[in-house]
Amino acid sequence: MPLGTGVSARTSHQAQILRLLRDVGACTHAQLVDFAEIGRARLAVELDELGAAGLISHGGKSRSRGGRPSPVVELGHDLRFVGVDLGATSVAVGIANSQLDLICFEEEPSDIREGPKKVLAQVHDLIAKLVATTAVAGISGIGVGIPGPVSYRDGVSVSPPLMPGWSQYPVRDQLAREFRCPVRVDNDVNVMALGERWGGVAKGMDDFLYVKIGTGIGSAMVMKGAVYHGAAGCAGDIGHIKVTDDVPCACGKRGCLEATFGGAALARGALAAAHAGQSPVLAERLATNRELTAVDVGIAAQQGDPVAVALIRSGGRDLGRVLAGLVNFMNPPLVVIAGGVSRLGHPLLAEIRQTIYSESLPLATSNLPIVLSEIVETAGVLGAVYSASELIFSTP
Amino acid sequence: MPLGTGVSARTSHQAQILRLLRDVGACTHAQLVDFAEIGRARLAVELDELGAAGLISHGGKSRSRGGRPSPVVELGHDLRFVGVDLGATSVAVGIANSQLDLICFEEEPSDIREGPKKVLAQVHDLIAKLVATTAVAGISGIGVGIPGPVSYRDGVSVSPPLMPGWSQYPVRDQLAREFRCPVRVDNDVNVMALGERWGGVAKGMDDFLYVKIGTGIGSAMVMKGAVYHGAAGCAGDIGHIKVTDDVPCACGKRGCLEATFGGAALARGALAAAHAGQSPVLAERLATNRELTAVDVGIAAQQGDPVAVALIRSGGRDLGRVLAGLVNFMNPPLVVIAGGVSRLGHPLLAEIRQTIYSESLPLATSNLPIVLSEIVETAGVLGAVYSASELIFSTP
Repeated sequence: MPLGTGVSARTSHQAQILRLLRDVGACTHAQLVDFAEIGRARLAVELDELGAAGLISHGGKSRSRGGRPSPVVELGHDLRFVGVDLGATSVAVGIANSQLDLICFEEEPSDIREGPKKVLAQVHDLIAKLVATTAVAGISGIGVGIPGPVSYRDGVSVSPPLMPGWSQYPVRDQLAREFRCPVRVDNDVNVMALGERWGGVAKGMDDFLYVKIGTGIGSAMVMKGAVYHGAAGCAGDIGHIKVTDDVPCACGKRGCLEATFGGAALARGALAAAHAGQSPVLAERLATNRELTAVDVGIAAQQGDPVAVALIRSGGRDLGRVLAGLVNFMNPPLVVIAGGVSRLGHPLLAEIRQTIYSESLPLATSNLPIVLSEIVETAGVLGAVYSASELIFSTP
Repeated sequence: MPLGTGVSARTSHQAQILRLLRDVGACTHAQLVDFAEIGRARLAVELDELGAAGLISHGGKSRSRGGRPSPVVELGHDLRFVGVDLGATSVAVGIANSQLDLICFEEEPSDIREGPKKVLAQVHDLIAKLVATTAVAGISGIGVGIPGPVSYRDGVSVSPPLMPGWSQYPVRDQLAREFRCPVRVDNDVNVMALGERWGGVAKGMDDFLYVKIGTGIGSAMVMKGAVYHGAAGCAGDIGHIKVTDDVPCACGKRGCLEATFGGAALARGALAAAHAGQSPVLAERLATNRELTAVDVGIAAQQGDPVAVALIRSGGRDLGRVLAGLVNFMNPPLVVIAGGVSRLGHPLLAEIRQTIYSESLPLATSNLPIVLSEIVETAGVLGAVYSASELIFSTP
């Protein structure tokens, strides 16, 4: 089993150089001198050290557009980043090369409620399997996304709801010990936002607001190319913003956004409507499947069921109101809507958009695209490999 | 009339060095080498250029704690930054030395509704007067805070409400031409937040949420030591976040935060209560002063008037609800409450605190001070001189 390569940037210049090579590809020495604002002598020292560590390799195609040819460097060909996306009911793992292209990806059912020992053993086996099948020589770093609040600094979950055994469990340190490489652990929505920025609709955007509507609702604030984590690492946790005085929430308070919208709230609303005889379509689906989920609401809405359409519209309006306030506050240049429930079709996105556009400041919305995520399955893993590269490409 | 010195940092290393000297005072060459991660030879080149421009001077007291003595540098003694704080009914100007200590400060009544030509002429005269009385040799830069939305990039107000003639007026370019120095224009709340960070309760805090309750309500998000401006420069504009379905707002929508709280809303509420015979205290103050303001509400509340107390509590709860959502979203380590209306006494701060603590996530509030601003009169000017120094101490 190949273990970690144990190398990372040692100076901030090295970190700058590595990120540039990741983001734009091979560069000439001249380009690096310009970008990093260092002399050629200093650059040579940094490149020697990076080369000896295998973080860069010399050669590659020049991008020079005339003038005296300048030597070219690119990222080391053997760099491999592992991304782990832990969900409530599944675990996905991928391995990426130095340019963060996924060279393999695998997803398995899993149950986060079985606790960290069992789930991390599954993660370990999945990584080992992919490493073996793709003949990886060494792992440079691992990024992990976990549902619920994460202490970014300590690499542990902090009091995640409905995840027994995970609070304060040393996820980062255990994986780092097992694979002998640096590991970064973050909240799953933050990680997905980084994936969307690397390979999705937010590509190249330094600032945007990312909103994930799954069973619950979370968000990530991307600023200057990085996720803003906040003091306790829970920035973006918008699911318990109060939107009404009614409706008890699982958190113990009343009127939280998640109590009125998200996969769980839609399922509850659908069940109530089916039992009350308000929706023959939902009642029929309940009789057939013995349960109702947000997917059933989406299908019923597509069939024109007025109750299902009303559930989606009302939820979209509640979410839209929260987002309208956040758009005023953050004034982002882009809002990305992601997560399984975001795929419920036109009525949802239309309602969210209409609410934001009508309730936010004209100045904040005059030039604001509100779009669906473009990468559904791999956003988490892609963000996790990006997160791992950020860890290696920064000073300790 | 002395004009601009026309000098500023030319490289990012120079900018780093200047900011360090501003923030911590005199430094040895050894400290600068460590901080800026550059070789001694390169440092010498940068320091020569900074010295020739008058941005630094050699000498000063060494802070070395033993070891071989290292030469010491500090900021140029002649650096002078001008701060301008434009309010709705006043204009304040101050001049600071290189360490951003105010060496003079003056405030005059003014009416922003008289338009930019008249108000900027008053600003010009006030600056000229202070420059003359304090024998300033040259102005390094000017910072300006303006009420309402500002395009940070273009240095102009953008559609500010109740400020005829100001939209798109070239405030920055006019002052830059008149005083031949760099000028930075920003929203007044953003500028006050920088002042609070430089010399108030947020001193040394890289991240915090600053909330100003004046006639209206605004906020500033400070992140990594800088104000986050957002895509259109209107980040922090929370006065028109919807808090209710009732109450028409001056902006044309219904239920905005400013429609239910802030100086104007309190005055409206007080007037209605006085006319309706619900508050003898407010009715008496109205009869005496022929008008009612937020100050009257504060005095009436201190006298135990239940209507005044209820107005403050209800407004504090509305603001607290908005802030509870923003605290969940941003997870700041500190919330600063500022502005004239924040001085209404204990019931207001108590209500804001209680609402935030009860409606935000426990993780986001477990370690969250919510405090009153410590600098009331000079926050705007102090932030403006800081803003001017940021402009000079950064690369163009």
